[in-house]
Amino acid sequence: MIEVALPGTGGMMPLPDRWLSCLAIRSGGHGVLFDCGEGTQIALKAINWGFRDIDALCVSHLHADHVSGLVGMLLMLANSGRAEPLTIYGPPGLSAVVACQRLLARYLPYQAAVSELWPGETFAVGGLRGTCALAEHRAPCLAYRLDLPRRPRFSPERAQALGLPVQTWRTLQSGQSVEWEGRTVLPEEVLGPPRRGLSLAYVTDTRPVEAVASLVAGVDLLVCEATFGDPADQPRAVETGHMTFAEAGRLARDSEVRRLVLTHFSPALRDPEAYRPEAARYFPEVVVGHDGLRLSLAFE
Amino acid sequence: MIEVALPGTGGMMPLPDRWLSCLAIRSGGHGVLFDCGEGTQIALKAINWGFRDIDALCVSHLHADHVSGLVGMLLMLANSGRAEPLTIYGPPGLSAVVACQRLLARYLPYQAAVSELWPGETFAVGGLRGTCALAEHRAPCLAYRLDLPRRPRFSPERAQALGLPVQTWRTLQSGQSVEWEGRTVLPEEVLGPPRRGLSLAYVTDTRPVEAVASLVAGVDLLVCEATFGDPADQPRAVETGHMTFAEAGRLARDSEVRRLVLTHFSPALRDPEAYRPEAARYFPEVVVGHDGLRLSLAFE
Repeated sequence: MIEVALPGTGGMMPLPDRWLSCLAIRSGGHGVLFDCGEGTQIALKAINWGFRDIDALCVSHLHADHVSGLVGMLLMLANSGRAEPLTIYGPPGLSAVVACQRLLARYLPYQAAVSELWPGETFAVGGLRGTCALAEHRAPCLAYRLDLPRRPRFSPERAQALGLPVQTWRTLQSGQSVEWEGRTVLPEEVLGPPRRGLSLAYVTDTRPVEAVASLVAGVDLLVCEATFGDPADQPRAVETGHMTFAEAGRLARDSEVRRLVLTHFSPALRDPEAYRPEAARYFPEVVVGHDGLRLSLAFE
Repeated sequence: MIEVALPGTGGMMPLPDRWLSCLAIRSGGHGVLFDCGEGTQIALKAINWGFRDIDALCVSHLHADHVSGLVGMLLMLANSGRAEPLTIYGPPGLSAVVACQRLLARYLPYQAAVSELWPGETFAVGGLRGTCALAEHRAPCLAYRLDLPRRPRFSPERAQALGLPVQTWRTLQSGQSVEWEGRTVLPEEVLGPPRRGLSLAYVTDTRPVEAVASLVAGVDLLVCEATFGDPADQPRAVETGHMTFAEAGRLARDSEVRRLVLTHFSPALRDPEAYRPEAARYFPEVVVGHDGLRLSLAFE
């Protein structure tokens, strides 16, 4: 199970009625926040989303609207009583930006590590496995994917038939072998076939390039930027390194994702919902995001 | 005439229903913003206060809740089409903080200068004269005062009696001498007595020390922090370098200010108005500030 929230859905600048684009997820007691522009700590408070469990901050790129709320977030996590280490992931250059922001947050009661990722690198947050791909924007930018694998079903009947005592079951269940009565019992002997896990991707500030399409292939949820609604803004999307609603819909269709939620709307887009048909032409079940949207992904 | 707005009135951290403490003023086509924490650009938008005329940003001190919105503000000013130079004033250390924030705002279409002030230094914004004093906080902190002088009244009757042609009047009116028919005419000859100007002060994150009391003496408007309402929090006020409502009221009374507006409330203070009597014991006409409060100061 993965809980998902969109505390904010705006691009470029925060507005009185729209926070900057970000994505918060929780799974198994661990949390990840994608992007942290000015006001994101307030947006999280506004939806009563807890702070303590945020173990990783994943920054797409080093433009102010995606990263300038970092110092407030770090201080907020400190105020929430956090003691556990936190890792901030992002593209090369992140270390300098975080070091600078920490001029205003020198002493934190927890360790805040910075990890600059190279496209294709992987990382782990609890049971979640993260990876990233190179987006195409006016600055080095990463698209992210998280996977939550699902263990194969354990068969107590087969374990009993093999005469294995109950105290060996947990080890086998976790995918490790056990020694029993002079022989090695492999987990495959008591586990069912592989099961589909859960996956989601956060894609913002990019053109719909092949590397991004490959990254998001088949995910359960794609949270994707759709900066421009009007097809007439297509040239601006190209020029500024963004996508239109139509392009986001096409990316989702071509990558065979299961669900699509749009975000990162231009401040000029006062009613994003009005442009829904543009994306729905390619991906009929598209959801036009809004601040505070929450949903959950459950194993089949 | 000076227009005044309190876009935010909160201390320590921004809340969904309370922006961080700041003060915006406008006079004669020039604007000054005091403090700029996370979200201040949104707070200004929320009250429809224009951006273009902000010529100076005055930072009280280098704690995140007073300065971390600077990068967003600089970018917002750029987006508003500003081309005129801007000066950012603040205590020593400001240059490093601004340089760091500008990692995220490298190219601005206007010049953004930084001026680190020493207590007692003066500066000018249009016709406004600024000065500052050393506050007592856990970080080097400045309290600010702005004065708008008022010209003495010009007497056309006296100018006519002296036989001065109309084209000399403006120069005399502005306080400069003119040469006429072989003699020097002094402005005093055609101007009335000195007239009271307008003044205001912004005092936050400080104990009510003597240097601050002297700075604010007799101002038309004192916007003053009042972090804690409950008298039981007096020891915390001392410990954290802040004031209670009662202390702010006493400071205003002892400094003989004309109007007092309280701001910078602790996040724990859910209803600041409830503590009004604490300050009113010393300054009966005290106004408990709230986000979006606007008022104006007019010449007598």
